[in-house]
Amino acid sequence: MRPLILITNDDGYDSKGLKTLISVAQSYGDVVVVAPEHNASGLSHSFTAQRPLRVREITSEEGLSIYACDGTPVDCVKLGQEYFCPRTPSLVLSGINHGSNSSINILYSGTMGAVLEASLLDIKAVGFSLVDYDPLVDFTSVILYINAIIGIVLENPMPSQVCLNVNIPRNVDNIKGIRLCRQSKARWIDCYRKCEDPRGVPYYWIDGEFVCDDNGEGTDQYALEHGYISIVPTTTDFTAYSSLDKFDFFNSELRIEN
Amino acid sequence: MRPLILITNDDGYDSKGLKTLISVAQSYGDVVVVAPEHNASGLSHSFTAQRPLRVREITSEEGLSIYACDGTPVDCVKLGQEYFCPRTPSLVLSGINHGSNSSINILYSGTMGAVLEASLLDIKAVGFSLVDYDPLVDFTSVILYINAIIGIVLENPMPSQVCLNVNIPRNVDNIKGIRLCRQSKARWIDCYRKCEDPRGVPYYWIDGEFVCDDNGEGTDQYALEHGYISIVPTTTDFTAYSSLDKFDFFNSELRIEN
Repeated sequence: MRPLILITNDDGYDSKGLKTLISVAQSYGDVVVVAPEHNASGLSHSFTAQRPLRVREITSEEGLSIYACDGTPVDCVKLGQEYFCPRTPSLVLSGINHGSNSSINILYSGTMGAVLEASLLDIKAVGFSLVDYDPLVDFTSVILYINAIIGIVLENPMPSQVCLNVNIPRNVDNIKGIRLCRQSKARWIDCYRKCEDPRGVPYYWIDGEFVCDDNGEGTDQYALEHGYISIVPTTTDFTAYSSLDKFDFFNSELRIEN
Repeated sequence: MRPLILITNDDGYDSKGLKTLISVAQSYGDVVVVAPEHNASGLSHSFTAQRPLRVREITSEEGLSIYACDGTPVDCVKLGQEYFCPRTPSLVLSGINHGSNSSINILYSGTMGAVLEASLLDIKAVGFSLVDYDPLVDFTSVILYINAIIGIVLENPMPSQVCLNVNIPRNVDNIKGIRLCRQSKARWIDCYRKCEDPRGVPYYWIDGEFVCDDNGEGTDQYALEHGYISIVPTTTDFTAYSSLDKFDFFNSELRIEN
């Protein structure tokens, strides 16, 4: 039986990146697509509990059923694997995202939210992002790499609950290769634009600048800035292991008598 | 000058847990509250980019200005520190959440999304959660502990970009003390209820069961199950360091000639 591959994204069911990923994945297995009805960028690992989800079935130009879900990318994985996959997927793919999910962007990313959720279900999972926000970007040059990475992931064992964050540099015609990396430390310096609506009531709209000083060799930012595709093996364990010994002041097993 | 403490949560600006946290924090510093207008549970690290944010100022019974923001907990921290804090906060507090954010729940948690965001701004940050979902729960017995933890955090240095995930066991009258822990591995087994609306159109509503087999000594689940408050130092670095050597098959620096 061919592997079942569940595909989602955060840009929405009709994005060019999703269509590209579907076409590559179809050479490896049977594809089920459950993707957000609307743009779900920046939705991180959020899921929908306060209201029910709706799913709309669309037939693609190639005759494939695509399930558009009015929830988040995490919802798409959770609901997709339970209701729209005929068997447990061998692989979950998310993307190709129009824009970077390297470094700290993973924290905000709906694309990677879906991937991390799949890893919790112990399904191999890979998120693909291209560092270019143009919705009409030409993916032709990156197809060979995505094809190779999917093949390698299907053939090789992956550690339990670890998934992959793959980012592709903007200059797709001069890709030098692939680098296994760690996540760079970085942050967004936000700057809200405060405006007034036609009734004089203020509103605030986020703008921001990505700042990364941690771009030495071995980081995903270094790889991307030097023309390599970055691959960061990624986990959902947030424990700051290297800092645990700096919190000895809590280890007194503080007991307060009420 | 007294420390400035920015407080938020994910249950919404009028939750009992938030009010309790405000009352404790006021003994340590000047308090600014920017909290979600509505319940924002499960919103993880999502932020609002596609639309502007609105903020409504409310005066509490005690005369404190509370800013209710129609965005996520992360929005509350980002916007709050830029527009509603008269100076950079010394501390960001989030909670007290009505429900657990231990183990893998941190990934979905809006409460902890706010805390992680503050850590990226290099502000000390602590999320407090009580393993009890009752919105009217009695917090009296936990106030002493929260007071002690805030005091310890203000007095001691914390590593850069590391924050604290504090969970309090349900049986608040028999707390044995505080334990420094690592995050347990766990997952939610989801089970969607498929129903039909009055027009016969299906909808799907999430339900789920928390499953944790990783509850040995040293984990947050162990601490909570044995009557201790768990404190997990937490980072936004998702790199699976202990698994990096298991992906050597990518280290060939794969170069594909187009």
